[in-house]
Amino acid sequence: MTRHRIAILGASGYTGAELVRLIATHPGMKIVALTADRKAGAAMAEVFPHLRHLALPRLVTIAEVDLKGVDLAFCALPHATTQEVISALPRDLKIVDLSADFRLRDPALYAHWYGHEHRALELQAEAVYGLTEFYREEIRAARLVAGTGCNAAAGLLAVVPLLEAGLIDPDEIIIDLVTGVSGAGRGAREGMLHAEVSEGFHAYNVASHRHMAEFDQEFAKAAGRPVTCSFTAHLAPQNRGILATIYLEGEAAAIHAELARRHAGEPFIRVLPLGESPHTRHVRGSNFCDLGVVADRRPGRTILFAALDNLVKGASGQAIQNANLMLGLDETAGLMAAPLFP
Amino acid sequence: MTRHRIAILGASGYTGAELVRLIATHPGMKIVALTADRKAGAAMAEVFPHLRHLALPRLVTIAEVDLKGVDLAFCALPHATTQEVISALPRDLKIVDLSADFRLRDPALYAHWYGHEHRALELQAEAVYGLTEFYREEIRAARLVAGTGCNAAAGLLAVVPLLEAGLIDPDEIIIDLVTGVSGAGRGAREGMLHAEVSEGFHAYNVASHRHMAEFDQEFAKAAGRPVTCSFTAHLAPQNRGILATIYLEGEAAAIHAELARRHAGEPFIRVLPLGESPHTRHVRGSNFCDLGVVADRRPGRTILFAALDNLVKGASGQAIQNANLMLGLDETAGLMAAPLFP
Amino acid sequence: MTRHRIAILGASGYTGAELVRLIATHPGMKIVALTADRKAGAAMAEVFPHLRHLALPRLVTIAEVDLKGVDLAFCALPHATTQEVISALPRDLKIVDLSADFRLRDPALYAHWYGHEHRALELQAEAVYGLTEFYREEIRAARLVAGTGCNAAAGLLAVVPLLEAGLIDPDEIIIDLVTGVSGAGRGAREGMLHAEVSEGFHAYNVASHRHMAEFDQEFAKAAGRPVTCSFTAHLAPQNRGILATIYLEGEAAAIHAELARRHAGEPFIRVLPLGESPHTRHVRGSNFCDLGVVADRRPGRTILFAALDNLVKGASGQAIQNANLMLGLDETAGLMAAPLFP
Amino acid sequence: MTRHRIAILGASGYTGAELVRLIATHPGMKIVALTADRKAGAAMAEVFPHLRHLALPRLVTIAEVDLKGVDLAFCALPHATTQEVISALPRDLKIVDLSADFRLRDPALYAHWYGHEHRALELQAEAVYGLTEFYREEIRAARLVAGTGCNAAAGLLAVVPLLEAGLIDPDEIIIDLVTGVSGAGRGAREGMLHAEVSEGFHAYNVASHRHMAEFDQEFAKAAGRPVTCSFTAHLAPQNRGILATIYLEGEAAAIHAELARRHAGEPFIRVLPLGESPHTRHVRGSNFCDLGVVADRRPGRTILFAALDNLVKGASGQAIQNANLMLGLDETAGLMAAPLFP
Repeated sequence: MTRHRIAILGASGYTGAELVRLIATHPGMKIVALTADRKAGAAMAEVFPHLRHLALPRLVTIAEVDLKGVDLAFCALPHATTQEVISALPRDLKIVDLSADFRLRDPALYAHWYGHEHRALELQAEAVYGLTEFYREEIRAARLVAGTGCNAAAGLLAVVPLLEAGLIDPDEIIIDLVTGVSGAGRGAREGMLHAEVSEGFHAYNVASHRHMAEFDQEFAKAAGRPVTCSFTAHLAPQNRGILATIYLEGEAAAIHAELARRHAGEPFIRVLPLGESPHTRHVRGSNFCDLGVVADRRPGRTILFAALDNLVKGASGQAIQNANLMLGLDETAGLMAAPLFP
Repeated sequence: MTRHRIAILGASGYTGAELVRLIATHPGMKIVALTADRKAGAAMAEVFPHLRHLALPRLVTIAEVDLKGVDLAFCALPHATTQEVISALPRDLKIVDLSADFRLRDPALYAHWYGHEHRALELQAEAVYGLTEFYREEIRAARLVAGTGCNAAAGLLAVVPLLEAGLIDPDEIIIDLVTGVSGAGRGAREGMLHAEVSEGFHAYNVASHRHMAEFDQEFAKAAGRPVTCSFTAHLAPQNRGILATIYLEGEAAAIHAELARRHAGEPFIRVLPLGESPHTRHVRGSNFCDLGVVADRRPGRTILFAALDNLVKGASGQAIQNANLMLGLDETAGLMAAPLFP
Repeated sequence: MTRHRIAILGASGYTGAELVRLIATHPGMKIVALTADRKAGAAMAEVFPHLRHLALPRLVTIAEVDLKGVDLAFCALPHATTQEVISALPRDLKIVDLSADFRLRDPALYAHWYGHEHRALELQAEAVYGLTEFYREEIRAARLVAGTGCNAAAGLLAVVPLLEAGLIDPDEIIIDLVTGVSGAGRGAREGMLHAEVSEGFHAYNVASHRHMAEFDQEFAKAAGRPVTCSFTAHLAPQNRGILATIYLEGEAAAIHAELARRHAGEPFIRVLPLGESPHTRHVRGSNFCDLGVVADRRPGRTILFAALDNLVKGASGQAIQNANLMLGLDETAGLMAAPLFP
Repeated sequence: MTRHRIAILGASGYTGAELVRLIATHPGMKIVALTADRKAGAAMAEVFPHLRHLALPRLVTIAEVDLKGVDLAFCALPHATTQEVISALPRDLKIVDLSADFRLRDPALYAHWYGHEHRALELQAEAVYGLTEFYREEIRAARLVAGTGCNAAAGLLAVVPLLEAGLIDPDEIIIDLVTGVSGAGRGAREGMLHAEVSEGFHAYNVASHRHMAEFDQEFAKAAGRPVTCSFTAHLAPQNRGILATIYLEGEAAAIHAELARRHAGEPFIRVLPLGESPHTRHVRGSNFCDLGVVADRRPGRTILFAALDNLVKGASGQAIQNANLMLGLDETAGLMAAPLFP
């Protein structure tokens, strides 16, 4: 198989390293450039010693990258700076972006949640939302794909089919979610120290988490009218994994049947038998998303669960899944490794 | 201060060890007997080496204990066997029970949730529910106090005042809760191995958790009519700590004001400023319960949080708090140690 | 590529699951039988839900397996029962055994360390010790290969080349080692509960650990005379990973040079630059073993480090590496996945 | 009991918070001032929410503290700045310093290990090394006590008595040690993030760790001649706890007998029965140090273990133990809380 030539912009963070890890055994991709502005000049093995066996290009600044001959760039840069970087890239370069910059289609919604006007409106209009299971054909044809928020991915894969099928009350959606710490990135912050995070549990950004904007956008599209859910994210003392526990008004059996039907052909969605609920550890390191449905003891109510690895299906695995489509590769190429347990 | 003479029946589990830990520096209690049927004959230091510096009686069987001269017995035995053991104890012995056997006042409710008829109905009728903050005077006068479920304690301290004050819709209560592993006890089970539990997160006993019976009982009493909540418990990879995230229909400001008012004089309830949410790590090892109130973005909805240490305020600390009252001691005696962080 | 037909005897433990995980994406192997005596009849997905996406044969008893047409069997059964099971297998079936039963060549040494006479002396004589880097050609020709102890693998890969080269004093070898909990297996034991293991550290089997027998055997072979090392194993609160810290009398520069030379062509040994020491997290989930050499401040002394994943290079990955050789496959087939970090 | 008036300089780090935690229930101390230059103006409850129930003075700068009426100051400031701060304090103020600035008596030794000349030589000459068990009478009379390094405390409590008794070869001491992450402090550093530290194990500062200077100083004093040991520190994924595994040439029985004899009256040293080794989890949150002795399989060699909580016996608990002596209080006041397990 010819290997497509890949650049990773922003390779010194966890999602960047995860892209390298996954591409290392990908039959159709080859890394030709890695950037990290602050660590330019370093070898990847210095920044991520677990990758030391790989023959990788040295980290450079974005300005130093020769993009000629690059088939696709993954962009794993911080929010806000991303839109400026991508604006400066060639307009025919295929891009999968992992930041939040191009997820929201409505500029007003973006400005509301991110606190400033979008500075690349044309690109924003062009970008396709990267939840493969719902935008597969658009992604196949896209030049710029915006990877979803990791929490958003978990909630959307579970709830969107139900809104589309009219099986739940759109006004009664509560998403209670827990995420591991790697979602917060590699930046040094007191609150993410081991001594602060381990052996404890707490909620964060209560009632103000930005991933709600993605729920609003995609739920409204699915329901055909505005939808406002409740959403609370918690931080658990584990590195990887998101579990969404979703409280719905709707019948469990119908909900389960619809999810099983809708995701029947999906290579990465594993719908558990009715009555079972998933564990984050059972998707660790993999591109799978496990869905579980349990009838609440309150009649007409259902508890719906979604589990995925925030760095894989919630970020870098999803990005490669999309890139596979954009490059005409098998959608599952490089992504079928089984989860790592224990 | 004269030290009251204390027996602990069932001292080889985590709640038993926690009672010993707390009583070790309690000015008004002295341990005179420790039982553990399977480990009878052993020194406590063999079973719990962290307690090796204490001069403690050797573990014996219950049959071997001389209860004459014992002022109060803590009973930390498994469910179901507890009712038989306590039935055989002197009727004038003060008892604080940490099992589920005497929590439910209605024998039918007990039979429904625990799968068999109660075998000590007279004692069941006598027992006082051990949530100190709501049953203080009854506990002071009681002979037999039934400690609450650890999860129940978290939910009840947060929600009961709101039902009593009529500030929330009793039909729209969702309690999403996470607990550490020590609540599962010291019995060897595959599912509680470090390799199974660490680095992952999952729900358990979904829609069937027995602590719902306590919510039903106490919420109904507070609301003056039947209340059925939704409740989901999750297991987090940490040893101690419960965080309840509770979704309510009601106004956050009023809810916060009522909780602050109601718990104003409570020595162990710390109500956080409106808009803040608690961490389990900030109550670890202590008898505190932290409550937090945040307005949801959906108007008229509130997200309410309760955090406590399942082995302390959720079990052994609560038991000592109740025993202090029953023995005429200062309610806070032996319980004011600050949380252990990090 | 034709896929060789593989049976896994003892598939319900962690090393069994790890074999399945690795074979799932192996281009030259296909699982045709899985056994687990106590869980016979169950689907693998019930025992290990993380593998639920795989089309796997149902678990059966060993007696039920039709071994005709099986090219190679991995045997991941408990010590002692293994020798009886393998004795009953066809004498032309290729076998990679992961137990301790065939690691020691000297029956007297076996009897000393394992407390009973070996019951399959003929097989013991036939077995090849499975440390690929030192027995590659023997393994290629072998019918029965005995996988090494996980701790032994770490120590041997680091020290054997130095004894062979005469660079260290054989009488002054101290191996201080830490291992994650998965090495203890999936059996339910109080001492391996999350609440017992997490947030703490301790030594175990001090001065009596059975993996010392393997050091004695292989060190003596390398040095050409008896060698008795000191060895202490500790349990760390992590699932995977072994780090050996080895104190030696010898010159760091020469030691580093010899390790670099000796392992230069090895696909799975990564020798770090002189002065650096490895992390277990940088080999997690992979078949790599990282070696590091640092000069002690005491002249003529060296501190040598080896890190590997006990379930991969220490067990199931090593087993597949050996099976690849025995089946005439590329030695690295199915094993080049990069470590999972974080 | 009259409560002595206490100031804590540097209260925003872990050792500062631990001092507050321990003093909160200390019968003879009362906190009257807390400083934290960068967080001056904040309430302690904002910086350490677990302490929110305490009535504490607001954080101020050191310049703002009125030291009149302060009986004793704990100084928990960073190395190097400490010597300047203490130089500016009144010369009659009792001080327990937790930094490294006054641990080394020899200015040349200090300059060698810390890379600059000491800037308060007079204070350095005055300071007493704070290992209570060996300097009790000097500490009772001291004005300025220098708390030991946390790793040093573990090694010294175990080895010094043996050197003094001439039971071991001073030239063959290897201290292999593991510590939890809280010893690294609360400063935000990439390497101490949960995602970097959890689920992994590694050595750090190999052959160059500064706590070796304390071993050199105290071992030489005990042996009556220079002693150079090997010392390797590792980081384990746990918040608290140090375990030193020490390899010695000497007889286990004699070593055990001497440690038992020497520490017989010590309130915080628990010598385990010969052949047992301690766990860090069994001292967590307490001021105990557990010592264990096991005979190596190599004749004449012994493996010696020491476990303590780095934030308590290794820092803040030790500091209070010393302060108790300096203030004429019972040495154990406020320090007898049992370890927190699990």
